[in-house]
Amino acid sequence: MRGFGMHSVGNVGWLEKDRPACGPLDAIVRPTMVAPCSSDTHVSHGGSGPRENLILGHEAVGIVDEVGSDVASIKPGDYVVVPCVTPHWLAPGVQNSRSTSHDVGPFGSFKLVGSKDGVMAEFFHVNLADANLTTLPEGVSPEAALMIVDMMSTGFHGAEAADIETGDTVVVIGIGPVGLMAIAGAGLHGAGRLIAVGTRPAAIDVARAYGATDVISYKAGPIDAQVREMTGGVGADRVIVAGGSGETFVQAIRMTRPTGIVSNINFFDISDVFAIPALDWGLGMINVDIRGGFCPGGAVRMEKLLDVVKYGRCDPTKIISHRFTGFDQIPDAFELMDVKAPDLIKPVVHLDA
Amino acid sequence: MRGFGMHSVGNVGWLEKDRPACGPLDAIVRPTMVAPCSSDTHVSHGGSGPRENLILGHEAVGIVDEVGSDVASIKPGDYVVVPCVTPHWLAPGVQNSRSTSHDVGPFGSFKLVGSKDGVMAEFFHVNLADANLTTLPEGVSPEAALMIVDMMSTGFHGAEAADIETGDTVVVIGIGPVGLMAIAGAGLHGAGRLIAVGTRPAAIDVARAYGATDVISYKAGPIDAQVREMTGGVGADRVIVAGGSGETFVQAIRMTRPTGIVSNINFFDISDVFAIPALDWGLGMINVDIRGGFCPGGAVRMEKLLDVVKYGRCDPTKIISHRFTGFDQIPDAFELMDVKAPDLIKPVVHLDA
Amino acid sequence: MRGFGMHSVGNVGWLEKDRPACGPLDAIVRPTMVAPCSSDTHVSHGGSGPRENLILGHEAVGIVDEVGSDVASIKPGDYVVVPCVTPHWLAPGVQNSRSTSHDVGPFGSFKLVGSKDGVMAEFFHVNLADANLTTLPEGVSPEAALMIVDMMSTGFHGAEAADIETGDTVVVIGIGPVGLMAIAGAGLHGAGRLIAVGTRPAAIDVARAYGATDVISYKAGPIDAQVREMTGGVGADRVIVAGGSGETFVQAIRMTRPTGIVSNINFFDISDVFAIPALDWGLGMINVDIRGGFCPGGAVRMEKLLDVVKYGRCDPTKIISHRFTGFDQIPDAFELMDVKAPDLIKPVVHLDA
Amino acid sequence: MRGFGMHSVGNVGWLEKDRPACGPLDAIVRPTMVAPCSSDTHVSHGGSGPRENLILGHEAVGIVDEVGSDVASIKPGDYVVVPCVTPHWLAPGVQNSRSTSHDVGPFGSFKLVGSKDGVMAEFFHVNLADANLTTLPEGVSPEAALMIVDMMSTGFHGAEAADIETGDTVVVIGIGPVGLMAIAGAGLHGAGRLIAVGTRPAAIDVARAYGATDVISYKAGPIDAQVREMTGGVGADRVIVAGGSGETFVQAIRMTRPTGIVSNINFFDISDVFAIPALDWGLGMINVDIRGGFCPGGAVRMEKLLDVVKYGRCDPTKIISHRFTGFDQIPDAFELMDVKAPDLIKPVVHLDA
Repeated sequence: MRGFGMHSVGNVGWLEKDRPACGPLDAIVRPTMVAPCSSDTHVSHGGSGPRENLILGHEAVGIVDEVGSDVASIKPGDYVVVPCVTPHWLAPGVQNSRSTSHDVGPFGSFKLVGSKDGVMAEFFHVNLADANLTTLPEGVSPEAALMIVDMMSTGFHGAEAADIETGDTVVVIGIGPVGLMAIAGAGLHGAGRLIAVGTRPAAIDVARAYGATDVISYKAGPIDAQVREMTGGVGADRVIVAGGSGETFVQAIRMTRPTGIVSNINFFDISDVFAIPALDWGLGMINVDIRGGFCPGGAVRMEKLLDVVKYGRCDPTKIISHRFTGFDQIPDAFELMDVKAPDLIKPVVHLDA
Repeated sequence: MRGFGMHSVGNVGWLEKDRPACGPLDAIVRPTMVAPCSSDTHVSHGGSGPRENLILGHEAVGIVDEVGSDVASIKPGDYVVVPCVTPHWLAPGVQNSRSTSHDVGPFGSFKLVGSKDGVMAEFFHVNLADANLTTLPEGVSPEAALMIVDMMSTGFHGAEAADIETGDTVVVIGIGPVGLMAIAGAGLHGAGRLIAVGTRPAAIDVARAYGATDVISYKAGPIDAQVREMTGGVGADRVIVAGGSGETFVQAIRMTRPTGIVSNINFFDISDVFAIPALDWGLGMINVDIRGGFCPGGAVRMEKLLDVVKYGRCDPTKIISHRFTGFDQIPDAFELMDVKAPDLIKPVVHLDA
Repeated sequence: MRGFGMHSVGNVGWLEKDRPACGPLDAIVRPTMVAPCSSDTHVSHGGSGPRENLILGHEAVGIVDEVGSDVASIKPGDYVVVPCVTPHWLAPGVQNSRSTSHDVGPFGSFKLVGSKDGVMAEFFHVNLADANLTTLPEGVSPEAALMIVDMMSTGFHGAEAADIETGDTVVVIGIGPVGLMAIAGAGLHGAGRLIAVGTRPAAIDVARAYGATDVISYKAGPIDAQVREMTGGVGADRVIVAGGSGETFVQAIRMTRPTGIVSNINFFDISDVFAIPALDWGLGMINVDIRGGFCPGGAVRMEKLLDVVKYGRCDPTKIISHRFTGFDQIPDAFELMDVKAPDLIKPVVHLDA
Repeated sequence: MRGFGMHSVGNVGWLEKDRPACGPLDAIVRPTMVAPCSSDTHVSHGGSGPRENLILGHEAVGIVDEVGSDVASIKPGDYVVVPCVTPHWLAPGVQNSRSTSHDVGPFGSFKLVGSKDGVMAEFFHVNLADANLTTLPEGVSPEAALMIVDMMSTGFHGAEAADIETGDTVVVIGIGPVGLMAIAGAGLHGAGRLIAVGTRPAAIDVARAYGATDVISYKAGPIDAQVREMTGGVGADRVIVAGGSGETFVQAIRMTRPTGIVSNINFFDISDVFAIPALDWGLGMINVDIRGGFCPGGAVRMEKLLDVVKYGRCDPTKIISHRFTGFDQIPDAFELMDVKAPDLIKPVVHLDA
């Protein structure tokens, strides 16, 4: 079968590989729509170390083509929503843990692209179909479903981990697609004032549509100083980091009030360093929590987010800025994500032309 | 000074009393707007036991008339928002506790009407002005502020205590003004599907405006059976009780799924009994939490809720169904609340004619 | 193979049944030690409804006899600790839930005796061996391991769910084996004063050895009044219910201070009713949480509890009051549990004579 | 009156100052026993910036000499326990916050030495006596009470903030007096294996007495590598940092498993930097929480910790290594703390010779 991926670091293109085999508890899915993600382009440049002959992509919805002999609730022909994180639910790492994303080791539950071929192919493999796949419900479009599998799940996780209290002043740093979903998530988890940090005009419009009440830019000066000033010197109650570098992260800490929380959902580069002066973190005793977590996955997470869409709380398709049609346009969508065109937020590819 | 209250149980009217004295940390406030509450009418009928010569009312905004010698941040002339719960912040009951509503004993922080004269008077007393009063910010109307001091704080508390997870199916039983604010609160704290239980047409409209996705009525059969059916037999993730009797409460438990949460904000009558069959609560081992709490108070709570309004998350004035003007109309507003006219949700009285 | 169980309600004895079949992810275990539990005797009397031809017992350690083709970490010959709760980790009920005990429905994870033959047999079946079995570590005796699979896991869960804050006054009602483990658990989760409620002399000794600082008895008057008096009228911070009837439960609520927590681990009878006067639960607004949960299971839970024993925090064998030796003595041990002899706490049966 | 303190940075000695004045809600206390703390010596060397003519010391028990006119529950002659953190309970920073240590700003609740004269004097001032002072109960020695006001409150806070789950493997880095109390606290909050990091023989003995199961030293190699090896490569569940430099803190993060928690109670120097490589914190997405908090204070906190002692959970006097007698020996005790003699853990000074 054909798939789009990386021959080696820095060298992407079409790959010809065998259709994946289906274990007794697994499923093989034919994608109908995929979305490239900056994680994919990051991997293609070697951001996760050397990789070769790997199909990319971890955001997809599609139709089940085959299921294993012991799969009970999912069957061929089902239109399914595929979380980008598909935990191995039998691994110890998911029991009694504060996250199911690290099943057999760090990030072990991130299997598509992470430890096997991804979704930008004619078919892809999903482990533990009963626990990880859910069918598309009435009232949710495939595009909306595609936007929840990683973007909404990650962005909302930033808001959830921030443990927002009613009326809190929340800052979201970064207004790429994940940051935008964090803004929407913060608005749906109790935020009062909601300050977005970003510069791209298209994204600023979506940020406001998702409930941002203020938008600031690093171009107007250090963002921690801006937030301090906006909050009468006190600092923000919660800060969600969805972009930037190690230095941005230090600014996030600096703009947080005593007893506040910094919640990170930005995938930092392997070369980044968080050089936090002790004074900026209250000499270690200021009761500011620093958290950072990976996208929650599994079928139930998807069902809950699908309900968020179905019942009208949030329309995640507002982050879709570019639409492509046809399997052959995957490379174009991927390249668009790679170069990060100025008007880009998130591209999707409809595979059924 | 003149105040409206109860001469004795069942006997309301105008009272003539001395203006309250102001302690060194306290304030005397002249109300500009008040709202009678069903708690007031409940008290007037003896629902809290025998009381006499008591001014009623605990929902007010107003202008500070006098402050004690040790008050620092509040001054005469300030337009203030007065939480209906004003904790004695020096009492042990507010330290290391999961609520600040029970300062020197059960419900000790509910002082207005609870343990001293209320707000339906020319002047009323507020303890610990610095910690319990906040000034009305720009961008929030006095009417909106009045609706947060009890209605929003109580209703949102129901949603907060329910510890809603993203996308949960939430039921709110009762669509009086507190139930309506619980609906709004649930929508702002992560709910997906949001089922309101109630029958009054005017309130149903507001419920939908606040984000209810379904409205059911006890007239169509037992509400627990209806919710079970709507959720495929599983039950709701969270149930907020904002009305009904002891039997309603048992239905709430019965409609909750294993590991779900029931959160009560209904003030039950002293004669109510919760007769919960062990089987309906999973023989005591079904991991369904039963919670019930009192309105949070204090200045910071008010400031957070004011931000909820100011930044456009929720307009609490939608629950105002009747408006009166002039001090002399307090009895009319009170009587309307007492008889619970069919089109009533919440009355307010503008005192400055 | 031979097993001890119930022919029908009220009619126990030896059963002859086929050895259970082993699915690809499962294991067949030969028990080396078992312990009858009051849940077993309860079931034998029809407490869970009509049952017939059912092998009883859900507390065992033993040796793996067979594993399915897809089991990775467990192998024949392993000496394993078997949690009495063995979740189906692929079911939706274990994802994003506050308990893993209700996998495919209420109590679905309680499979031994609950939905299939139990452990008092030559062999028994365990689902999902990799996720539910763990090997006995060095430094923990088989007897100690046997006491953790239900008694410690349930008793400690009572303390965990009570969310004890450092120095809290905790009451544990009931000093059967689970109540005793709740006392030990409360002492290991922050309790200050620790009041046990019970009367049996042998159990009282163990209660004190596990850290109870006071022991009271219902024979000396209503226990809620006693606790109120011992706490200067305020009530206890946390109350763990590990015994009694529906009326006992109401007393538990009555003895809890405002903002306290009642945590239940008692398996109430299907005929019990909790008739809670609204006044005793602060009219529903006193911020007293009422919780009740089922024994946590799975391999990781066992490993954590094994560490509690291995590292000297708690010796659960103190609750063993009677020891039997040989497969043929299972009926004697069972009968002892059934009649609840005055000096009984917990019996165990060493099967390898 | 006479007090021991700093004339200026680096210049300590006896100071002659006026007896402090007592506000209407405050108290004046005559200390009967004090303990110098490394925070005091740190301040004396300019660690908190320039200070002059400041009486040092923030750990004391003593006898109330005077109370303000509005104090209700405390009276002259009471033997009181004085938390080192005495919040201004009327400040907004204590309402709806996750800590009461930052009342009017960062560390605002740390008033003794922090913003006014400390306790090493004939008399010292305590704000809000009713809310911040508690009387010494029967069954607790003054020495034990003295050890809770900062050492136990801070050390236990490290364990509390670590949110230990039953049976967790916990590392405590640093076995000074606070680290030792963190070890005791971890043992009382659910820890299984408990690894202490330190080298001083006297402190190692106390660490084991408080429940440490393993003791490792940086002299045997990088401590993160040691912990990784001891945990089979996985890392510790929880790490409490009670000593070391910024580099130690990075090691703490590195030795924590995915979804673990790092809890800091070490007062870092103003010159420290936490230079955390993104990779060591799982690129910001490994779900490892980093927390750091200040000693909880107030009367109720003291009462709870006094109960921990009174009911036999922990004897904090094991950390007392040196005892002095008489007011005039304060300088000797202070100097001992300053030079950190090899056999020093914690000195106390009995002032009543």
